[in-house]
Amino acid sequence: MTQNIYDDAGFFAGYARLRRSVDGLDGAPEWPALKSMLPNLKAARVVDLGCGFGWFCRWAREAGAAEVLGLDVSANMLARARETTSDAAIVYRQADLDALELPAAAFDLAYSSLTLHYLEHLAELFAAVHRALAPGGSFVFSVEHPLYTEPGPDYLDEGPRTTDWLAPGVIKQHRTLATYLNLLIAAGFAVRRVEEWGPSRAEIAAHPEWKIDHRRPSFLLVSAAR
Amino acid sequence: MTQNIYDDAGFFAGYARLRRSVDGLDGAPEWPALKSMLPNLKAARVVDLGCGFGWFCRWAREAGAAEVLGLDVSANMLARARETTSDAAIVYRQADLDALELPAAAFDLAYSSLTLHYLEHLAELFAAVHRALAPGGSFVFSVEHPLYTEPGPDYLDEGPRTTDWLAPGVIKQHRTLATYLNLLIAAGFAVRRVEEWGPSRAEIAAHPEWKIDHRRPSFLLVSAAR
Repeated sequence: MTQNIYDDAGFFAGYARLRRSVDGLDGAPEWPALKSMLPNLKAARVVDLGCGFGWFCRWAREAGAAEVLGLDVSANMLARARETTSDAAIVYRQADLDALELPAAAFDLAYSSLTLHYLEHLAELFAAVHRALAPGGSFVFSVEHPLYTEPGPDYLDEGPRTTDWLAPGVIKQHRTLATYLNLLIAAGFAVRRVEEWGPSRAEIAAHPEWKIDHRRPSFLLVSAAR
Repeated sequence: MTQNIYDDAGFFAGYARLRRSVDGLDGAPEWPALKSMLPNLKAARVVDLGCGFGWFCRWAREAGAAEVLGLDVSANMLARARETTSDAAIVYRQADLDALELPAAAFDLAYSSLTLHYLEHLAELFAAVHRALAPGGSFVFSVEHPLYTEPGPDYLDEGPRTTDWLAPGVIKQHRTLATYLNLLIAAGFAVRRVEEWGPSRAEIAAHPEWKIDHRRPSFLLVSAAR
């Protein structure tokens, strides 16, 4: 099972103070790009892999989704998600995404934000998502860009990376961009769009607090079709 | 029209001494990976975009291709290709790939090795290749990896890069990996496989002359289907 760092008290406290935790989707700079890759959600059945505080689940309902299943490994996250949700069409469930079981052809959209880079068994997860999507269904996700997880000289050396982010010893899995795409294709997906997201020069100018002095991508966004 | 650096006398003299020029495909370390992405060439009609000395054209015939069209912008390269080829099923033609015209549905494989990063109008080239391929046809190409063309902090800033390689002032077009893929998808291709090629640790150990002390990819290899 993948490390459940979100149930580490120190990590959780730090995470809960991030702008994307406080302000939700609008606090995430990559959200406009990711949103533009989503299908029409009218009447859609949605599963959110790594739903965190449930911001996307609630947004999906506002965007017309018929029902939303939010999955997360963290009891802390799910407790907060449930506290802040009053919508019977949203169900939260604790799940280990490294051993995910979902009903077949039960969803029109599988969504995942900044979660999959924690998983050890990504091929199996992609296969499970493919099976869980209805024909024509969409899989839209973001992960840390590989150049962010591995900014050093070892880009081609895939495997775990341990960082100190909010808590010591956070484990992420470094995979090349090619590996993400080839695993998707091997699972049966058609790649629809790939974005290597980094702040624009205008965004950097408008947000001096980002203190970013380079134009390297921070997030990899992918849209794929079953 | 894209800079025709291969007809610069100094560049050409240097290029002709590279191991991949002297030894052909076997002198190119990425060739085994690229070869593994090719379809069966038995009776195939092949076009090589940037054929250089014609090494791939001749190999394709040995691999069973029925006919091969080799295109290159460089008169120097084509002259050498013709000198070293005695096969009526291989035709070499001078062409500006930034304004390519090919008959429709006339090829089963479009191949290109380390050429497309010179082109200014890649969307138009991809559209021309899509049109020139028969249904089910393959497009397999290599380019300099974007991290090689732009190893510095400006990965997300696409556009021309001027380098001194074999001659001063060689102009290459930097595009992100995402842009290569999105342009392919927009042209109607299905991405089949993506490789970010760099030498393996064993290859580095076996070729100390490569003097590579990092595991960053040098080449991007892509296989796509019409």
